[in-house]
Amino acid sequence: MDSTVKFELSIEFRDLFREAVENQNESFIKNSLEGIDDADVSALLEEFDSEDSKYVLDLLGPEMAADVINHLDDDTRARFIKVYSPEELALVITDLDSDDAVDIINELPVEEQEKVISQIDDREKEQNILELLHYDEDVAGGLMAKELIKANENWSVKKTIEEIRRQAEKVEKIYSVYVVDEYERLLGRVSLKRIIISRDDTRIADIYDKGIVSVDTTMKEEEVASVMRKYDLEAVPVVNYSGQLVGRITVDDILDVITEAAEEERQLMSGITSDVEEDDSVWMLTKARLPWLIIGVAGGLISAEFMGLFEKDIMAGAWIALFLPLIQATGGNVGIQSSSIVVQSLANPSAFQDMMGKRLGKVFLTALVNALVLALIVYGATWLMNFELAQCLIVSFALFSVVVLSSLVGTVTPLVLNRMGFNPALASGPFITTLNDILGLGIYFYTIHLLVSVL
Amino acid sequence: MDSTVKFELSIEFRDLFREAVENQNESFIKNSLEGIDDADVSALLEEFDSEDSKYVLDLLGPEMAADVINHLDDDTRARFIKVYSPEELALVITDLDSDDAVDIINELPVEEQEKVISQIDDREKEQNILELLHYDEDVAGGLMAKELIKANENWSVKKTIEEIRRQAEKVEKIYSVYVVDEYERLLGRVSLKRIIISRDDTRIADIYDKGIVSVDTTMKEEEVASVMRKYDLEAVPVVNYSGQLVGRITVDDILDVITEAAEEERQLMSGITSDVEEDDSVWMLTKARLPWLIIGVAGGLISAEFMGLFEKDIMAGAWIALFLPLIQATGGNVGIQSSSIVVQSLANPSAFQDMMGKRLGKVFLTALVNALVLALIVYGATWLMNFELAQCLIVSFALFSVVVLSSLVGTVTPLVLNRMGFNPALASGPFITTLNDILGLGIYFYTIHLLVSVL
Repeated sequence: MDSTVKFELSIEFRDLFREAVENQNESFIKNSLEGIDDADVSALLEEFDSEDSKYVLDLLGPEMAADVINHLDDDTRARFIKVYSPEELALVITDLDSDDAVDIINELPVEEQEKVISQIDDREKEQNILELLHYDEDVAGGLMAKELIKANENWSVKKTIEEIRRQAEKVEKIYSVYVVDEYERLLGRVSLKRIIISRDDTRIADIYDKGIVSVDTTMKEEEVASVMRKYDLEAVPVVNYSGQLVGRITVDDILDVITEAAEEERQLMSGITSDVEEDDSVWMLTKARLPWLIIGVAGGLISAEFMGLFEKDIMAGAWIALFLPLIQATGGNVGIQSSSIVVQSLANPSAFQDMMGKRLGKVFLTALVNALVLALIVYGATWLMNFELAQCLIVSFALFSVVVLSSLVGTVTPLVLNRMGFNPALASGPFITTLNDILGLGIYFYTIHLLVSVL
Repeated sequence: MDSTVKFELSIEFRDLFREAVENQNESFIKNSLEGIDDADVSALLEEFDSEDSKYVLDLLGPEMAADVINHLDDDTRARFIKVYSPEELALVITDLDSDDAVDIINELPVEEQEKVISQIDDREKEQNILELLHYDEDVAGGLMAKELIKANENWSVKKTIEEIRRQAEKVEKIYSVYVVDEYERLLGRVSLKRIIISRDDTRIADIYDKGIVSVDTTMKEEEVASVMRKYDLEAVPVVNYSGQLVGRITVDDILDVITEAAEEERQLMSGITSDVEEDDSVWMLTKARLPWLIIGVAGGLISAEFMGLFEKDIMAGAWIALFLPLIQATGGNVGIQSSSIVVQSLANPSAFQDMMGKRLGKVFLTALVNALVLALIVYGATWLMNFELAQCLIVSFALFSVVVLSSLVGTVTPLVLNRMGFNPALASGPFITTLNDILGLGIYFYTIHLLVSVL
């Protein structure tokens, strides 16, 4: 009755397992992993070094080994496949869907790739892999698997079921059967549910669903993700330029695309290079963080140089220094807000996007409203803090200008980055905010110079 | 042959369609939407006001209307259902899966909810909705639908197929058939593929897969998402505390959970309250942004007050002011990096998390390394910039302290927020960074006071 009780990975189990590996206790290893999902075995083996992991996988047999390797995180897997010979890797790869196989091959150096592929026995698999290797990793062609079930529109339900039986062995998950014409062009789909509830002699042409959403091999992965999300699809067929069905993308790959895009954005926004995690070494963490910190420090030093030009002004009125944090923090906050709103709308493109001019007009208006409210608050506060009237005016006017300009820069920068092919979230990262800081400083001191002589 | 050509929403089409709605051109409306996916109709109607949209939906019939309303974005839908009477809403809801039905009901005021539910004709649907309303929206119970296909372990494949035929009408997407015992307890699953390729007289008990991953009704939605991602599931069964199968969650709902979590994090990190988008009004945008900006401004004013205490020091040495941006920007950058790494590891919890003490030790070590490198760079740079030796020492020592402290604060804050039930990404937002700014200022001036007397 307890068949659904979930296996729980625990530190205690890991330590027991480590002991078993050290003592080469084969029966413990086999028994304790019996019936465990390969994703859990992967999570466990990520705690072991590559040689020990290979020892365990060799005990579990090639099919399980393939699934476990497929589930490892990218870092561990890259390290891991180094201890496999080309023959062994070819065996692992033969047991995987073509898209997963290509992911592993892509992690090898080019000369290794050829060695592994030449060792694959299954001719069809080899052809599929060679075809998929042509595509970039971040487009539909690079995400799709060749494994899918298709039926000719002229087949009967009976023949289709026979074909499903024949093809099903190679396809792990069937969501629907794709319907093609004699030239392999995609016509539509028919669900397994529909096939099950139809009579044997029904023709596919009479029951298939023509309104099918497909994507092009060249479509960007983020776009594929938004198509699948919009239409609630668990799989989407991929067609080439002549409309021929060449593969399908399943939703589990899209979950990874979306999660990784969110992680990349988080890293860009917080100034961390590369995919670093808390459990990486101090050296890795430092390498990922230090470059961005140095950029920020360089910005700070440039700011110091720049402000050195105004040393006399500062000596004459320390109040100038007092409002530096206010000006800089507000400029930074406004800039990041603005960029973030643009990044959001780039991530959810609408078919009815307003013209750029109208969009920028709205940004400008919002900036003016924010700037006005904040300037009034600061004017009132500085007055209450007993600053001179001229000082209150200068500070609030500088703040007003900084808010308006930071809004515009924060809006335009991600749009430009996006147009140039960079991730627009970079605009919220330390490089752009450092530039913004210097700009804010410039505005502040320019305002002081301008107004001190007038007031 | 062109049956798969995709319908393209365009501004031109929207304008033509608007004209047709104004002129009540029923035949244009019906013909132009013929065969269009409901997600596309939703995207189109989001451009229209609620009365016009209702006019269009009434032409399309109740089933299509239900699907279109289901696909509308939350804002539009909340506005939209106000123009429906309880009877009309009950009709719409009857055509939806129970989870989608409950999402719509949850948007109504409580007294309206009862009116709508009492108008539902389908008794089973009504019961399902009442049951689902008991769960919080952000746990598995609140995400699941009651519609699923189940089979008793003692059935034959033939009987199971008959049952699928009977139940299939109510279930839009079948991924697998769940197998239960006589007490409705979940035993496992059998895939449609397996059913199709098995003989009619095979017993379900002999072919079903016992290693099934299920979730509890009380599991948090983010955790459900990470389970489904880990095990590559397109649907996961939900069980109650007695192990009985009570519903299932499909991957399309999880795609929404993940995307919305990423959006919420982006908003928290950049200081935007509520779910605001570029195409919202200037007033909405201002309302979402201004509160956080005011917090930042308040922080800036407090900084000014605080620095006022050191006015004499600043008058005596303007160099103190020159390095304010350096100290503050670096403190901010380090804090956000640190928080972001913690947020990342909270989002991907590992079964083998190290003890808190060890984790903090590593953070401290990384902070020391970063702080040392940055302090040395600044020491060298200020020396080259011809500052006095004491000044170089003070600035680099202050920077060192700020980096170490900001690392610790940036690491601990998201952990504390998470423990208290808040979203840890708040730690990278303007409120915490404002506090950090003030802390950095305090450290800087404290260092100056301490060292000026010594050096």
